[in-house]
Amino acid sequence: MTKRLSDCSVAVIGLGLMGASLCLDLTKGKLCREVRGVARRTATVLEAFFAGAVDLATNDLTTGVLGADIVILATPVRTIVDMLTEIGPHLQPGTVVMDMGSTKAEICAAMATLPPEVQPIGGHPMCGKETAGFGSAEAGLYINAPWVLTPLPRTSDTTIRLATELAQAVGARPVVLEAARHDRLVASISHLPFLLASGLVHAVAQTGSDDAMVWSLAAGGFRDTSRVAASDTRMFMDILMTNRTAVLEQLDNFTQHLSEIRALLAQADENTLSSKLAISQKARAGWKKS
Amino acid sequence: MTKRLSDCSVAVIGLGLMGASLCLDLTKGKLCREVRGVARRTATVLEAFFAGAVDLATNDLTTGVLGADIVILATPVRTIVDMLTEIGPHLQPGTVVMDMGSTKAEICAAMATLPPEVQPIGGHPMCGKETAGFGSAEAGLYINAPWVLTPLPRTSDTTIRLATELAQAVGARPVVLEAARHDRLVASISHLPFLLASGLVHAVAQTGSDDAMVWSLAAGGFRDTSRVAASDTRMFMDILMTNRTAVLEQLDNFTQHLSEIRALLAQADENTLSSKLAISQKARAGWKKS
Repeated sequence: MTKRLSDCSVAVIGLGLMGASLCLDLTKGKLCREVRGVARRTATVLEAFFAGAVDLATNDLTTGVLGADIVILATPVRTIVDMLTEIGPHLQPGTVVMDMGSTKAEICAAMATLPPEVQPIGGHPMCGKETAGFGSAEAGLYINAPWVLTPLPRTSDTTIRLATELAQAVGARPVVLEAARHDRLVASISHLPFLLASGLVHAVAQTGSDDAMVWSLAAGGFRDTSRVAASDTRMFMDILMTNRTAVLEQLDNFTQHLSEIRALLAQADENTLSSKLAISQKARAGWKKS
Repeated sequence: MTKRLSDCSVAVIGLGLMGASLCLDLTKGKLCREVRGVARRTATVLEAFFAGAVDLATNDLTTGVLGADIVILATPVRTIVDMLTEIGPHLQPGTVVMDMGSTKAEICAAMATLPPEVQPIGGHPMCGKETAGFGSAEAGLYINAPWVLTPLPRTSDTTIRLATELAQAVGARPVVLEAARHDRLVASISHLPFLLASGLVHAVAQTGSDDAMVWSLAAGGFRDTSRVAASDTRMFMDILMTNRTAVLEQLDNFTQHLSEIRALLAQADENTLSSKLAISQKARAGWKKS
């Protein structure tokens, strides 16, 4: 009964940055029997096909998943949730259903409603970029990235092993976590940074409405701190709406800290301000992956 | 009376990232007659000398500036302010006194108290990194960087031209601005991002105190958004304390926007939230230097 990735037909639904990069790795590395690509837009289907990213391509979801051993949903979160309902009846027994969505609780809840004979497992490779679409895809995107796997109670060890094999095959580091824990963690390291970056762009734009010079002076500090604000709004709306509680908690945490910093600056309390900034300085400078 | 950079003895006070990178460019490019380096720590003096970054090196401020045609102060802001008082009596008539400090109003005010026979001009090359010290210095750091020049009422055209020549000689793009305007703009594009990055690290550290996994999952979004939080605390304390009014205004601006975003998320007002995020998305994606 043990499936090997090399024997599998893998259907990747959604050929944006994440899905198409995975297809490229699977195809170029001959990591599975065949790679099917499914995209909504015909132009994307053709682009993926002619780029050699997929062996088979279609814009019909049902056709795409029919007979596949592994189905990987790689669209924005709420589209994944909708598709899970749609594909359920068309999956052959034993099909492994994975996803690459940015939040996991709602997706895993939807996966729990899949027919009992299919094997669902949530997944989230942690290596986004602020650019989206097939044109942003690149082979090797997943090398050294943590790839979170969130099994359901019904997920078999065999399925966890196959998902692990797939993540490792493209160079990622699989990390098994509960969905709720994943969502709490990414609220902190991904969704909060996005909202801060977006707010920073807003603040600079407001400064720029009085003095356009601000845009030509903006240098590396602004560039890096604001980078993720350019992320696809549609994708982030799904993320925020499916992780509201954790994101609101992070926002409140952050806002409270920032208001303390503001008060110290307003009072010119240099010692306290300096020691608070030094704690974050040390934490960031000491972070291994900087 | 027109001085040319190639005829000048240039004394750079402070051999950290900014000062030492400038020395390297001046020395390697033979852009001036001689480069003197002054640093407080003897180890830095020796390091700069043996690296060939300077022609002459000393840890004595008075010796360093004696007979120099151009003196460039490249230390944290409040050290610059203190040094201006100290060096005043030792400067030969006609000496051009520049600086590379991150805020300009307090420095220019201190420059106004220099003896009338010297020529002060404020300056700020916009190309910081989060690393500090001589070891972070690099030739070519200033290439394509905006280099803000803030002349005083008494600054002669000749001095502005010489400062412009120096900035251009190392590849920077000189931009003449009033000190107050500079400070308002950098509060938005540099000091606000620093405080947001620092606060983000605080929030992630708080999440990490419950669940250390957060640090190993943190990827590119966190890395970039938090990068400047690793900047030297001492340097940033000087920046914040000498630009409090503008920084507080930016913080209030930002906080108000973030609380609006929070309310929209809490109310699940998708349309309004989405349109606000889309404005920043578009502004950032359209920013030329991204």
